[in-house]
Amino acid sequence: MIEVHTAKDIQKLAKNYRKKGKTIGFVPTMGFLHEGHMSLVKKARKDNDIVVMSIFVNPMQFGPGEDYDAYPRDLERDRTLAEEGGVDVLFTPGAEEMYQQESTVIVNVKKRTDVLCGRSREGHFDGVATVLTKLFNLTSPTRVYFGMKDAQQVAVVDGLLNDFFMDIELIPVDTMREDDGLAKSSRNVNLSASERSEAPALYQALQQGARLIREGERNPDAIKKEIRTLLEKTSGVIDYADIYSYPDLETMETLSGKIIIAVAVQFSKARLIDNIIVNIPLDQKEDL
Amino acid sequence: MIEVHTAKDIQKLAKNYRKKGKTIGFVPTMGFLHEGHMSLVKKARKDNDIVVMSIFVNPMQFGPGEDYDAYPRDLERDRTLAEEGGVDVLFTPGAEEMYQQESTVIVNVKKRTDVLCGRSREGHFDGVATVLTKLFNLTSPTRVYFGMKDAQQVAVVDGLLNDFFMDIELIPVDTMREDDGLAKSSRNVNLSASERSEAPALYQALQQGARLIREGERNPDAIKKEIRTLLEKTSGVIDYADIYSYPDLETMETLSGKIIIAVAVQFSKARLIDNIIVNIPLDQKEDL
Repeated sequence: MIEVHTAKDIQKLAKNYRKKGKTIGFVPTMGFLHEGHMSLVKKARKDNDIVVMSIFVNPMQFGPGEDYDAYPRDLERDRTLAEEGGVDVLFTPGAEEMYQQESTVIVNVKKRTDVLCGRSREGHFDGVATVLTKLFNLTSPTRVYFGMKDAQQVAVVDGLLNDFFMDIELIPVDTMREDDGLAKSSRNVNLSASERSEAPALYQALQQGARLIREGERNPDAIKKEIRTLLEKTSGVIDYADIYSYPDLETMETLSGKIIIAVAVQFSKARLIDNIIVNIPLDQKEDL
Repeated sequence: MIEVHTAKDIQKLAKNYRKKGKTIGFVPTMGFLHEGHMSLVKKARKDNDIVVMSIFVNPMQFGPGEDYDAYPRDLERDRTLAEEGGVDVLFTPGAEEMYQQESTVIVNVKKRTDVLCGRSREGHFDGVATVLTKLFNLTSPTRVYFGMKDAQQVAVVDGLLNDFFMDIELIPVDTMREDDGLAKSSRNVNLSASERSEAPALYQALQQGARLIREGERNPDAIKKEIRTLLEKTSGVIDYADIYSYPDLETMETLSGKIIIAVAVQFSKARLIDNIIVNIPLDQKEDL
């Protein structure tokens, strides 16, 4: 595994691979790698000649109240995991490398942001889209890999690639789950034992939503109501339980086409999120 | 000369050229070509294997009060000029091709915009930077060509390429001038005979500014005052006569480094602009 730190070096390296006809699978991360990241690497490894991973805690996507400095970092462990996972090139720039001057231009995300997690994180997706534009221009990827756990981020990346005609294929990777259905997350360790036993309720509620649709329900409010009822049985506080079109993330009066059911629940020391994508009519593939 | 209309076709064509190791010089225009555009083509022709020109009147860079519909168009004549100038690929998309959906993301220009012509055109440079990002991703240029007549646009493109790590070389091309120094412009035909005889005052005033700097003047206000005095002798109304750092376009108390002196004068039926770049100390090349 090669590790590079500068924009110049990664750009030169990536251009060289592409010039030789190699495909590049790119996995952008903020480090502190877990199984979710490694499932992206595994998929990228299978699809491409070269796998590039970036580890960069992007200051621009943290709001004033959010703790950029306290974001967990463990570069040494990440390096080992990346190498074991088959990453060819690890890009680990500093903030001064990615933001070399006070920004003249940024990417401003106009849609798909004022719902779900984006509602409470103003400017967050501008930071995500801006740093990804930089990273894409540096790593010349054939394909980019994102986890569907953060379905809103995938929707924003989809808009970014399409609107700007970036010649990159977006590969959303299914959320990894524990045996009882709980979506894997670094935050799960912050659940108490009793909260951990309640936590599968998120995925069960989503599945119940899908079941109602399968049975013919097309009214989002009826489905949301039932999901809330299930989530209210936990000790957590519901942040949202919503249904939108996907990836446009627009509200619907009657469900049709590709939709997302998404929930967020605040437990005492961990905020859990989860979602599923459902295609209506249901004769299509059920997960994105 | 090949003419293509769709995003898909131009992207495929350009990628193919680059894959074969060819360099691409790209000249983005809004059409209604004049000598200024052709000087960009001439330079691009000399520097690159392939010359790509786009003709696209970009609705996003016109404000509500500005007349997008009345912008002059003559595609047939443009085609002939482009072919005669040695353009290999002419890209002439429609608005529905460049903006295929309501924009999810745009490029937002945070700096270099609230001065000179940008001051009175809110959102104009967002439109410019957004469409250029799209066009650059479609045409994969090695080099892009812009006229220094619009020095502020060059400054914004410089910020766009640097901030987003676009691997494209920016080639600013000197303003073309009539024998008496007047910058060439389609708008010059709208000057009355007496205004036409006064119009060289813009360039003369800029040169007088450069002369004062050469003589040791470092106070921008003193220089601006003298420029204004010269411009006030015309029948036009001064819109601005300003001095900034270049390409940062920031105000300076004492002149040093690379600076721009820029003027805009409104005549009865034509608004003329002009500028020069001066390097301080003057032992460097005087024009960008």
